[in-house]
Amino acid sequence: QLPEQENLVYFNIKEQRTQFDINRDHTAFWLPGDYDSQEYDYTTSKLTEIRGLMSTAVTPNVSQSPFSDTGVQTALMLKTVDSLYINLHEAALVEYPCMHLELDDNTLIFESHLTPDAIGNKGYMQSPRSTPWRTVIASDNAADILMSRITLNLNEPCTYEDTEWIKPVKYIGVWWEMITGKSSWAYSDLKSIQLGETDFTKIESNGRHAANTTHVKEYLDFAAEHDFDAVLVEGWNQGWEDWFDNSKDYVFDFTSSYPDFDVDVLREYAKSKGVRLMMHHETSGSSRNYERHMDEAYQFMVDNNYNSVKSGYVGNIIPRGETHSGQWMVNHYLYAIKKAAEYKIMVNAHEAVRPTGLCRTYPNLIGNESARGTEYEAFGGNNPDHTTILPFTRLLGGPMDYTPGIFEPDVSQYNPGNGSKVRTTLARQLALYVTMYSPLQMAADLPETYKKHMDAFQFIKDVGIDWDETKVLEAEPGDFITYARKEKGTGHWFVGRTNDEIARTSEISFDFLDADKRYIATIYSDKSDAHYQTNPKAYQINKFVATSKSELSQYCAPGGGYAISLTVADSRRETRGLKKL
Amino acid sequence: QLPEQENLVYFNIKEQRTQFDINRDHTAFWLPGDYDSQEYDYTTSKLTEIRGLMSTAVTPNVSQSPFSDTGVQTALMLKTVDSLYINLHEAALVEYPCMHLELDDNTLIFESHLTPDAIGNKGYMQSPRSTPWRTVIASDNAADILMSRITLNLNEPCTYEDTEWIKPVKYIGVWWEMITGKSSWAYSDLKSIQLGETDFTKIESNGRHAANTTHVKEYLDFAAEHDFDAVLVEGWNQGWEDWFDNSKDYVFDFTSSYPDFDVDVLREYAKSKGVRLMMHHETSGSSRNYERHMDEAYQFMVDNNYNSVKSGYVGNIIPRGETHSGQWMVNHYLYAIKKAAEYKIMVNAHEAVRPTGLCRTYPNLIGNESARGTEYEAFGGNNPDHTTILPFTRLLGGPMDYTPGIFEPDVSQYNPGNGSKVRTTLARQLALYVTMYSPLQMAADLPETYKKHMDAFQFIKDVGIDWDETKVLEAEPGDFITYARKEKGTGHWFVGRTNDEIARTSEISFDFLDADKRYIATIYSDKSDAHYQTNPKAYQINKFVATSKSELSQYCAPGGGYAISLTVADSRRETRGLKKL
Ligand SMILES: [Ca+2]
Ligand SMILES: [Ca+2]
Repeated sequence: QLPEQENLVYFNIKEQRTQFDINRDHTAFWLPGDYDSQEYDYTTSKLTEIRGLMSTAVTPNVSQSPFSDTGVQTALMLKTVDSLYINLHEAALVEYPCMHLELDDNTLIFESHLTPDAIGNKGYMQSPRSTPWRTVIASDNAADILMSRITLNLNEPCTYEDTEWIKPVKYIGVWWEMITGKSSWAYSDLKSIQLGETDFTKIESNGRHAANTTHVKEYLDFAAEHDFDAVLVEGWNQGWEDWFDNSKDYVFDFTSSYPDFDVDVLREYAKSKGVRLMMHHETSGSSRNYERHMDEAYQFMVDNNYNSVKSGYVGNIIPRGETHSGQWMVNHYLYAIKKAAEYKIMVNAHEAVRPTGLCRTYPNLIGNESARGTEYEAFGGNNPDHTTILPFTRLLGGPMDYTPGIFEPDVSQYNPGNGSKVRTTLARQLALYVTMYSPLQMAADLPETYKKHMDAFQFIKDVGIDWDETKVLEAEPGDFITYARKEKGTGHWFVGRTNDEIARTSEISFDFLDADKRYIATIYSDKSDAHYQTNPKAYQINKFVATSKSELSQYCAPGGGYAISLTVADSRRETRGLKKL
Repeated sequence: QLPEQENLVYFNIKEQRTQFDINRDHTAFWLPGDYDSQEYDYTTSKLTEIRGLMSTAVTPNVSQSPFSDTGVQTALMLKTVDSLYINLHEAALVEYPCMHLELDDNTLIFESHLTPDAIGNKGYMQSPRSTPWRTVIASDNAADILMSRITLNLNEPCTYEDTEWIKPVKYIGVWWEMITGKSSWAYSDLKSIQLGETDFTKIESNGRHAANTTHVKEYLDFAAEHDFDAVLVEGWNQGWEDWFDNSKDYVFDFTSSYPDFDVDVLREYAKSKGVRLMMHHETSGSSRNYERHMDEAYQFMVDNNYNSVKSGYVGNIIPRGETHSGQWMVNHYLYAIKKAAEYKIMVNAHEAVRPTGLCRTYPNLIGNESARGTEYEAFGGNNPDHTTILPFTRLLGGPMDYTPGIFEPDVSQYNPGNGSKVRTTLARQLALYVTMYSPLQMAADLPETYKKHMDAFQFIKDVGIDWDETKVLEAEPGDFITYARKEKGTGHWFVGRTNDEIARTSEISFDFLDADKRYIATIYSDKSDAHYQTNPKAYQINKFVATSKSELSQYCAPGGGYAISLTVADSRRETRGLKKL
């Protein structure tokens, strides 16, 4: 904390020179340092190799501002030559620019590098003021990094008195069909529209607009049938024709729907089905415009029975010159969360600054993207080891809306023009519900696809989203992670294993289970010939009886993994005929 | 208008190269071109002298960004070597950056120079879009420039259906005592405060805080006694301790009063007196913060019976890198006006971009400052010819809240530490109510001072603020202007003459008066020994009978002028004993 001092009341941060002396040429799991984007694949390399690998690490993105050939992001995961695991991050990023790290690759010292504003300043300060924490987590056990709560705990306790309105959400959404290119967000194919002037009722739909009343009802039906809490609908509101890459200030108003999306009908239909609609506020980075409409937008949600919103900040920030991770936007994101709380609205912000544990203080921040999520599987793919690193990095700051559950890995099945392949096996898609902690979990694929795999879909229906207990069973960044979690209320356990591109065998013990209980273990695993590239859908489902004495040796395909549900067996009859694990 | 074209939908303006080929080395009445400030004295020079005079013309200001040694502002007034009067300006500045002019002093061509944004762009456009008009007004009669309505007429007609709530306002205010330094805006002498955290009820006042309940009641009493519509109160709200020059984002909330300003008591007191309180929203240039609080601030006004607001943008703009005259802020000012209209609130914006006739379309923009106003008389003074130029320049775009009526020209009488002298005679202060057109007129001096000069104050009480007819009787930019205006409703005429630093005699005919009426002419004029520097308070008041045949030869002191009220005499008795003019 910077105390108020006679000559230090208002001041500008020119640079904050926190140094992390790494000393030796350890291995880093790093993302290119960037003021705007975190949506990169991880590069695993020696520290001295960062400079040489930077140009390939910086893959194209819609808004990006890398700042140095040796600049990397936090949370930065390191593994030393003598197998010590070290994590560098920050906590409680409030009213301050986001920190990156810049490596001096001669001395092997990382120095903090703050995000500048439009005129190059790095933080406007009034003392007394606490600056964000800089954290170092170190252990010779990788699992300790995953289990560390230091980032959350360095944040202030919950600031809300009433938190009854904040609840975990399992949802589906009108989303993947647009991400893959099968459908469109936009109602029409116009090149340019003007909100309030373009009369969409006089314009014909392009025929690919997914967010239409009939189609949304199908999603609501599916959600109701399978006990989902909510249905996200993207592309419901006017403005998607020209929202992107035009630096358009007044780009959305967040309350005007396209003519084929009937707000009233869908509100009542959702109510009748006991399912919530989930709001979508894409801002296109136009932060002033969003703030101008925010009260009306949130009120519109309340009036129409929405209680959660996915917000997005795709593209360059307006005001121009500001970036996603500068003090200006850090202030904005928190403003949006606090104001949402006034309306009892939960926020899942995408493309926002990477989280630093603020969800402890503001638990209506139920999710963030702020890293390369599943959407990139339809934009060329994520590295197969991606989900073996994210829990060591991105997830330390808070839950991620990774949107797992893709059952059709061949994107061209939805859009012949899109040759992307989802670079995981189907079994691993299930594992992610356990390995990627979030109180907000999506089943991201299309209902029509789930209907073809109802046996595997059963796991998504069953899996918990709120937990009493968490164990890390196996963990090595870049290679694999196996989690076990006990569901709040039911006492059921769920296990998930994510594996990198190498075939491996997972060896776990079930000693975390209650010693006096018997469980039905349903194992969703890769078949022996499964492979994320050539045979991703080869999964098998087997049932066993499990106790705290059980052990498992489970094959994981390249890019594979497995998921297990362990439900408490109340009677012998339930487990009759099942082998013991 | 730029039509929508296949390859011109969204685009950036890099520069707009409108040229005005002036051709010869004429005389210009110019202000330094500046992205942030218009609060300069005019320099009168040949065009070729601009470069050499620029450094002295750019006097210090709290936020200033001059951009070129030959850059000047519009409206630019020119007088050619053969006595043609030419004015260059723009009209209907909407969603576009403000235009300045840059002189090529070899070719004597002015080229438009747009205000850039934080990253150097000059305008984000979506076709079809109308760009602001560029205007040239020329006449061999200077009065024609003053009478031109081209700037207003190039704006769209009034956009409001109901305008009943927009009314002229004559007001006094808790203001000049702070401007002079006699009193303070701030409640305390703390160096730093935090809104919502600093508990002002536990802090003692500094004893100089003018916006306190008792004192404001005195102003309300005076306003009621002398038929003013409103009392402006500045410094009523928390935040004045550290509002300036700290780039403080959350600087005011516009609803939290200091503990000695009782909103409820004053609301009721003002009501009981039939006087309105006028709101003050100083933003400190923190535009995001203002927009965040705007709805609450306007609602607070409605709830407390305020119907007009003086807003201010002192200091550098936030977002940093933006300036007062760029597209970002041009958008903001209009947003504030439109939103005010939703609450039926009239806006008088200070330090906003120079007006371009928008008050035609949005008549609740009842005033602007946007030039060097009377406040500078307490900051060292304005040039004596200042008010002989403003009507040729600044006022073409809309009314100016010049805040005339200073009766105590020796500022040290209020604040011994302030050696400023108001650089006009008292008689000329009266003339400004007629020469500086505005439906919003302030009597800017202190009630205690007016009480010492109730004979002269009578003119301020009498003078109209809403007019049926306007005549320019004499006009020469930089030297003098004499206006006659007929008050709406009453049929009374008022004459005002402002004079530069040279003693002159004004020669006017009263042929504008109704031929069949007799008028009581009350002439408020400089005594023969009056002088703006040495004897500014030497005024005299004489009454005559006037008709359309009357003529007047009236001496004007250096920095002086005169004001005349011409009230219709209904009977012979009223004019008994008065000489004929
Ligand atoms: Ca690996
Ligand atoms: Ca002169």
